[in-house]
Amino acid sequence: MKWKYKTPGIRDDLFIRGKVPMTKEEVRAVTLSKLRLEEASMMVDVGAGTGSIAIEAAHICTKGKVIAIERNIEGIELIKKNSEQFGVPLEIVHGKAAEKLKEIEGFDRVMIGGSGGELADIMKLCYEKLSREGICVINCITIETLYESIENLKEIGFSQIDVVSVNIARGKALGRYTLMEGLNPIYIISGIKE
Amino acid sequence: MKWKYKTPGIRDDLFIRGKVPMTKEEVRAVTLSKLRLEEASMMVDVGAGTGSIAIEAAHICTKGKVIAIERNIEGIELIKKNSEQFGVPLEIVHGKAAEKLKEIEGFDRVMIGGSGGELADIMKLCYEKLSREGICVINCITIETLYESIENLKEIGFSQIDVVSVNIARGKALGRYTLMEGLNPIYIISGIKE
Amino acid sequence: MKWKYKTPGIRDDLFIRGKVPMTKEEVRAVTLSKLRLEEASMMVDVGAGTGSIAIEAAHICTKGKVIAIERNIEGIELIKKNSEQFGVPLEIVHGKAAEKLKEIEGFDRVMIGGSGGELADIMKLCYEKLSREGICVINCITIETLYESIENLKEIGFSQIDVVSVNIARGKALGRYTLMEGLNPIYIISGIKE
Amino acid sequence: MKWKYKTPGIRDDLFIRGKVPMTKEEVRAVTLSKLRLEEASMMVDVGAGTGSIAIEAAHICTKGKVIAIERNIEGIELIKKNSEQFGVPLEIVHGKAAEKLKEIEGFDRVMIGGSGGELADIMKLCYEKLSREGICVINCITIETLYESIENLKEIGFSQIDVVSVNIARGKALGRYTLMEGLNPIYIISGIKE
Repeated sequence: MKWKYKTPGIRDDLFIRGKVPMTKEEVRAVTLSKLRLEEASMMVDVGAGTGSIAIEAAHICTKGKVIAIERNIEGIELIKKNSEQFGVPLEIVHGKAAEKLKEIEGFDRVMIGGSGGELADIMKLCYEKLSREGICVINCITIETLYESIENLKEIGFSQIDVVSVNIARGKALGRYTLMEGLNPIYIISGIKE
Repeated sequence: MKWKYKTPGIRDDLFIRGKVPMTKEEVRAVTLSKLRLEEASMMVDVGAGTGSIAIEAAHICTKGKVIAIERNIEGIELIKKNSEQFGVPLEIVHGKAAEKLKEIEGFDRVMIGGSGGELADIMKLCYEKLSREGICVINCITIETLYESIENLKEIGFSQIDVVSVNIARGKALGRYTLMEGLNPIYIISGIKE
Repeated sequence: MKWKYKTPGIRDDLFIRGKVPMTKEEVRAVTLSKLRLEEASMMVDVGAGTGSIAIEAAHICTKGKVIAIERNIEGIELIKKNSEQFGVPLEIVHGKAAEKLKEIEGFDRVMIGGSGGELADIMKLCYEKLSREGICVINCITIETLYESIENLKEIGFSQIDVVSVNIARGKALGRYTLMEGLNPIYIISGIKE
Repeated sequence: MKWKYKTPGIRDDLFIRGKVPMTKEEVRAVTLSKLRLEEASMMVDVGAGTGSIAIEAAHICTKGKVIAIERNIEGIELIKKNSEQFGVPLEIVHGKAAEKLKEIEGFDRVMIGGSGGELADIMKLCYEKLSREGICVINCITIETLYESIENLKEIGFSQIDVVSVNIARGKALGRYTLMEGLNPIYIISGIKE
């Protein structure tokens, strides 16, 4: 199965998920928009989970590279399966982001979806490794990582800090009715290394 | 000025707006994701407003075509200016959608952002003109067009009807504080002609 | 167990719930605010579910009366248990609202939480039975009842029609983190019989 | 003009506002619900703004007392005018909360709507002055005060910490249409001194 469309927002049900939480398609679309990818972008997905965002990126960065870092082995398996079924090339790295990022030479974009409690260190490393005009996007589901992401972006020296909260509800058909079901709110934070 | 990125979600402040309401960048990103564009897609933007969605689409449909229909002359001027500044080709049509759609041979995607009170007629015409596997997306800001969009999609015979509400709030820097400001909720409805 | 506080918004976990859906405490607080109850108000709760809103009302309408109508026997049992544990007097009526409303002489407030597909008939009956300056509040979770509630209020002749959507997310402690979990959006519609 | 209803949520347009930001009626209803007021409650409103929350509380705490502290003189004038027009007794205190709280013997409830940058000090003082089972509610509109409120509640020793975000949109009649307009999201945090 391949995704033949040029717009991000691959349908959620096309991913193999297991019990790993996945960024929902509408939130992925907004996240990708904040990443402002180019064909030649080198992107790193930190805490890649099911790989859904990395796979969206790999569809776009056809002349660059996408690296997915994930510390849970269950996630690594899912990322492998998902990248295979979509037929996109991903470099999949198993381990702690704070260590693995050091081994990567440099990149243009980084998406932080999970940090394993080492958010500040990861963000500092990302700043060092990002190219000029490079962009860092962080997806948060807790108040504490939301706050710390903003504080870290400021302290580290990122510019054009952008914060949005995204509340999505989806209609579920129930006979002739459309029942609205709320998803969890997501906070998408980003900054640029000028 | 050109937008060099491959992901939708052009920054709002890059568009010339006047007093015409514009779909905000995060909502545009979700809307584009529901349109599932291909490079060769023929897309029509009905009630194109400032042209922001048509321009995003034109960046992607480089081997297809994007037609923007708008009945307000102020909108037509904005669409022209915006397509020029972004350097993307758009076919801009001034007039009522219900009439102008009849003159178009066929298309693969249609986005309805405004209907001038003729939503049902426009949607029927769109169904006729859409190719197989064609997609219709409607952005609504009122309860009545939300309801009617869903009803019309069902009656006309569209499949895979999808309804999402999108509530975005944006952080505004206020000294050391990030004040969250709510945007108006948008309902994005879509269906496929199977 | 009694609720000794004078403000609506009884904690959700204090109600016996079974599998019957319950209006969440924050939404109950907004709903009660739209009902504008007085001590002497006669209120009817149509589709009372677990009785949570009727019980909140009964705490306030100590010189009036609160009638809870529910057609599901499981709901009736829950309403009985809940009103007993909170020690508030409720008149509990088992049956279809469209029939049972006819047997009630008149009332000052009506809350419609469920309509069993007979929303228009119920709303017309409510208008007839409401006293002057009486208030009708409808809680909706589907697009169709939202739309029909507004249309019915207009057609029947209600004034000061008020529509709000309420999106609540609640923080859940997860170690040192506060994870935000979204509830389903609720639409609260109201009108006054002038 | 008096508010004769027993439920919180006084209509926004009944308050004299000037340019001072005011907690909207739906948010007030939820805030009051978290305050769990009793007739005999002694409540303090810190950063009372227009006095809207203090006035709602004063309607309920008829055997207790409500003190409104505000450091802006424009706010003080509005609180006076609003308490007069609603005919409820309020003790109005002009000055910095961190100082003025020290002069108050003790209280059962405290609502913090504004802190003038002294949130931690104010919260510590509130904990000292609160009676057992006393409740502290904080309304936040920024990420930083949201985060700091939660951290402070934990550090100071409050129990049953509760965090909700409230996103309200209101319908505005536009001909036959109901346009949904988003309000700014509000975070309501509370804790109990056990």
